[in-house]
Amino acid sequence: MNYPNYIKKEKTFRTNYANRGMVLENDLNITNQYYQEKDIAIINKKATPIQVVKVSFNLKKQPTIKEAYFKKPSTTDYNGLYRGKYIDFEAKETKIKKYFPLHNINKQQLKHIKSIIKHQGICFIIVRFTSHNKTYLLKGSSLLEYINTTKKKTIPLSFFEEEGYLIKETYLPRIDYLKIVDQIYFGGQNEEKN
Amino acid sequence: MNYPNYIKKEKTFRTNYANRGMVLENDLNITNQYYQEKDIAIINKKATPIQVVKVSFNLKKQPTIKEAYFKKPSTTDYNGLYRGKYIDFEAKETKIKKYFPLHNINKQQLKHIKSIIKHQGICFIIVRFTSHNKTYLLKGSSLLEYINTTKKKTIPLSFFEEEGYLIKETYLPRIDYLKIVDQIYFGGQNEEKN
Repeated sequence: MNYPNYIKKEKTFRTNYANRGMVLENDLNITNQYYQEKDIAIINKKATPIQVVKVSFNLKKQPTIKEAYFKKPSTTDYNGLYRGKYIDFEAKETKIKKYFPLHNINKQQLKHIKSIIKHQGICFIIVRFTSHNKTYLLKGSSLLEYINTTKKKTIPLSFFEEEGYLIKETYLPRIDYLKIVDQIYFGGQNEEKN
Repeated sequence: MNYPNYIKKEKTFRTNYANRGMVLENDLNITNQYYQEKDIAIINKKATPIQVVKVSFNLKKQPTIKEAYFKKPSTTDYNGLYRGKYIDFEAKETKIKKYFPLHNINKQQLKHIKSIIKHQGICFIIVRFTSHNKTYLLKGSSLLEYINTTKKKTIPLSFFEEEGYLIKETYLPRIDYLKIVDQIYFGGQNEEKN
């Protein structure tokens, strides 16, 4: 058959497509699962929004989606509940050594972050610099201030070092970001948790 | 070709498959959009979880999902942020006149509701009896108490009338459930909003 020549390959995934190669995402999923099992917080990754176009039904099996497309996310990746507060964050990793490119976070997402802060939710981003193996939490308010002040398209690593919070990586929980949340949003340690 | 005979039909949807025939869901989406535009609350329907199995790539177009399946939801349908608090709820409609069948809410979802209440989130269900065209908000705690006390598999309409809160339907917002939330979770009207 004559396929158009732009069709190069067809790949098959048996695991969740959205997880493609993102180690940070996997670490966060394990961490959130730990928080849930230990009854510390209920924080989940939002499902990747998918536009379903064609579905095939048969009476014996479950319906099969035959044609669908990934949609661009308009909010952040994670949200949930911790110590009675609404928590919302986006997680990104970069291979670049000295800065984080801001095109990783789209305009709709920035609007969402602004909105969450306005409505008194806890909102931040988690950024991993994979070449240093260092993961930072940066408050949403610091991110917005940086963008409004500098008008730059990248955030230097030094900004994360100065304004962000380094998240210690341990065996379990893998990335204990709630320890940082306790410090900066609840004014100290969580006695119950520690 | 010889297709196995259990393949009866193949349907094509141009709209979101998850919305199939659910008027309440559509009303809630319009309501949540209104809340967001008026900067009252940020509450979204969670994307239907989908297990992607096969993706086809081509260089000119976006990737196309060729095989995927709907997954059973393990949490509730909606969550978000209102007046600094985490909000979480499930919405269901029934054609049955005198009761609401509890099999509409699965065990995982009940566990989730329990967990949200424990962590001081606002959690409830919205149930519409389509034959009466009446929509009720029932607190998650009332739902759990009913289940624990009666061990029944249905909730009679009278329970919603007595323990639930009738949501007034207007043009905009379509189903103003936050008015009820103001009353029962914030102890009165929201001066800013009204």
